[in-house]
Amino acid sequence: MIVNGKHYRTIWPNPENRTEIIIVDQRKLPHLFVTETLRTVEDAITAIKEMHVRGAGLIGITAGYGIYLAALAAPDNCFDKCIKKNSTELGNSRPTARNLKWAVERVCRAMETVNTPEQKRKIAFQEANNIADEDVFFCRQIGKHGLEIIRKIRNQKKGKTVNILTHCNAGWLAFADYGSATAPIYAARDAGINIHVWVDETRPWNQGAKLTAWELQQEKIDNTLICDNTGGHLMQHGLVDLVIVGTDRTTHTGDVANKIGTYLKALAAYDNNIPFYVALPSSTIDWTLDNGMEIPIEQRTGEEITTITGMDNNNSISTISLAADGTQAANYSFDITPARLITGLITERGIVAAEKNAIHNLFPEGGQINRQEQGIS
Amino acid sequence: MIVNGKHYRTIWPNPENRTEIIIVDQRKLPHLFVTETLRTVEDAITAIKEMHVRGAGLIGITAGYGIYLAALAAPDNCFDKCIKKNSTELGNSRPTARNLKWAVERVCRAMETVNTPEQKRKIAFQEANNIADEDVFFCRQIGKHGLEIIRKIRNQKKGKTVNILTHCNAGWLAFADYGSATAPIYAARDAGINIHVWVDETRPWNQGAKLTAWELQQEKIDNTLICDNTGGHLMQHGLVDLVIVGTDRTTHTGDVANKIGTYLKALAAYDNNIPFYVALPSSTIDWTLDNGMEIPIEQRTGEEITTITGMDNNNSISTISLAADGTQAANYSFDITPARLITGLITERGIVAAEKNAIHNLFPEGGQINRQEQGIS
Repeated sequence: MIVNGKHYRTIWPNPENRTEIIIVDQRKLPHLFVTETLRTVEDAITAIKEMHVRGAGLIGITAGYGIYLAALAAPDNCFDKCIKKNSTELGNSRPTARNLKWAVERVCRAMETVNTPEQKRKIAFQEANNIADEDVFFCRQIGKHGLEIIRKIRNQKKGKTVNILTHCNAGWLAFADYGSATAPIYAARDAGINIHVWVDETRPWNQGAKLTAWELQQEKIDNTLICDNTGGHLMQHGLVDLVIVGTDRTTHTGDVANKIGTYLKALAAYDNNIPFYVALPSSTIDWTLDNGMEIPIEQRTGEEITTITGMDNNNSISTISLAADGTQAANYSFDITPARLITGLITERGIVAAEKNAIHNLFPEGGQINRQEQGIS
Repeated sequence: MIVNGKHYRTIWPNPENRTEIIIVDQRKLPHLFVTETLRTVEDAITAIKEMHVRGAGLIGITAGYGIYLAALAAPDNCFDKCIKKNSTELGNSRPTARNLKWAVERVCRAMETVNTPEQKRKIAFQEANNIADEDVFFCRQIGKHGLEIIRKIRNQKKGKTVNILTHCNAGWLAFADYGSATAPIYAARDAGINIHVWVDETRPWNQGAKLTAWELQQEKIDNTLICDNTGGHLMQHGLVDLVIVGTDRTTHTGDVANKIGTYLKALAAYDNNIPFYVALPSSTIDWTLDNGMEIPIEQRTGEEITTITGMDNNNSISTISLAADGTQAANYSFDITPARLITGLITERGIVAAEKNAIHNLFPEGGQINRQEQGIS
């Protein structure tokens, strides 16, 4: 993505010192665009847990690089034991995102193919880079497939602006580049289609207000910020043509765990006969879970609801309290959108129904992964 | 309601000077409990427009006293003309709330029954007081009827805590006292039923976080603040037994205009087979509209979304920016929940289906009002 005229990914190895991984600290956006250097696996865990980075793809990539940083620090004489410990910690740093464990396992598996710690460090770096590059490629493919949905609506509307609603940030900032839900939007813009995006602010962390609106503004895509309460009203009034969201974990039966509130938008889209698509690289698919309701839902501190951070009148980042002292708040981070409410999944291989057979037909290797993970040979 | 050990209504005539009306300035809650004195109809219009007062009942009562203040100031030689102008301005100060015009018309009609300006001023004061007292009485009746719904659920749950979700503030602070949606909650508490309330924070104005959570805390009712995105998840997991919300305008066919986002909660309740009730004094019923989608929906400034006000570290009330400079935001204040999603309406006369015949059976005078307003004798 272009930020202030320069192309960035969300995460990259320091070209001058490959033992360092650089991220954009997303907690400071949109007010400040600052980078942070991760030097240890602990840095990576903190960045994931405390949401310096967030979003399905980016959590996975950060975890991949985290294993690489762990490998750099692991002593030769207890390398495997040390990596195992770090893998568990990294894998547990947030509970809902599928990509997190997927990336950890992928880098660990790559290390198993070579023998010495030095070789393992080298291959860990390669594999983490592969995950990032594949993420970029897959997001571009998602854009290509999703573009066809938007093009069809544009044609039905005889060229009028296509209004797309999105929830949370499944944009550039949630992946290495392009994003999942935003990739079709960027592809449509590039194809000359008039697009307008309704951006859910996405309480409590305000990823929509802080990240998606900023990202679209940087990319000069017409957008309007709305409260999460608003989507149903807009849909009732014909002001939304299409919903595209991302996902943190997708069951192989088509249920979707995404940012809390996604389920409510899916219900409204269904009630108003508006297509509701979920965009995802297949790395978010959980091949072992049949029922989305079994996905663990992260609970974070209530302070993320009772206080809020923004830019004050002195151009300083400031935190204020929004509720009376002693107010108890519950902060669930994700909810489950059942497959029955989803029009289709936009994957790197094409668009597929949110349905077990269709998903397995498009990803025949998925069943294999399923059997592996369940310990069935 | 008891605030810091003292009983308050939300609005009352100054007992030492009946030409002044005192309100609680709700913009400062929960951080500061301060009152404001309204001395002119312009003060009343500002208080309504800029949300010093808000909520279906309280807007109506304030408008009633506003006409009284207008009558105090209207010169004898052009009394009627002056009142007519002020009535129009007051009636248009917010577009969605039904009670506003209802109260204005009611005080004006009372003035028509007497002759001299002095008599009119006196009766305007009486009628505004009547509206306030009736509001209190009706809210208590709503509490009595709604209690039976809660009692039934408590019995089904064999005495376990009843979890009620509410959106926005249809509490004490939205009426003169008790509230509509909260009245059954207060009645259940008084009846010894264990209650827990999920309080939607209610973006963008945060009436839930600022008002409902504070109000329930003052009344020592167990409550948990949640983001508006959360209700669907809670319902999917059996954590909500009942939804009760208020309404700003209810068509005589049972459609409900309430705070933006209410429709989304109604969809989720319907999808999870959870009873969804709307509590209302009959003054919110619009006897002329057959279709809720015809209710005008107020749009307020986008700044209410891109900035937010709370208490900073220095215990000062401070406003911060939540989005990048230049972010466009759309701020719709209400949405329409169609009657088909509503389990029932809790009115001062009892519980009734959200359905034209049932509503007219309970309020046979409604059809008369309908014909009057449409100019049919």
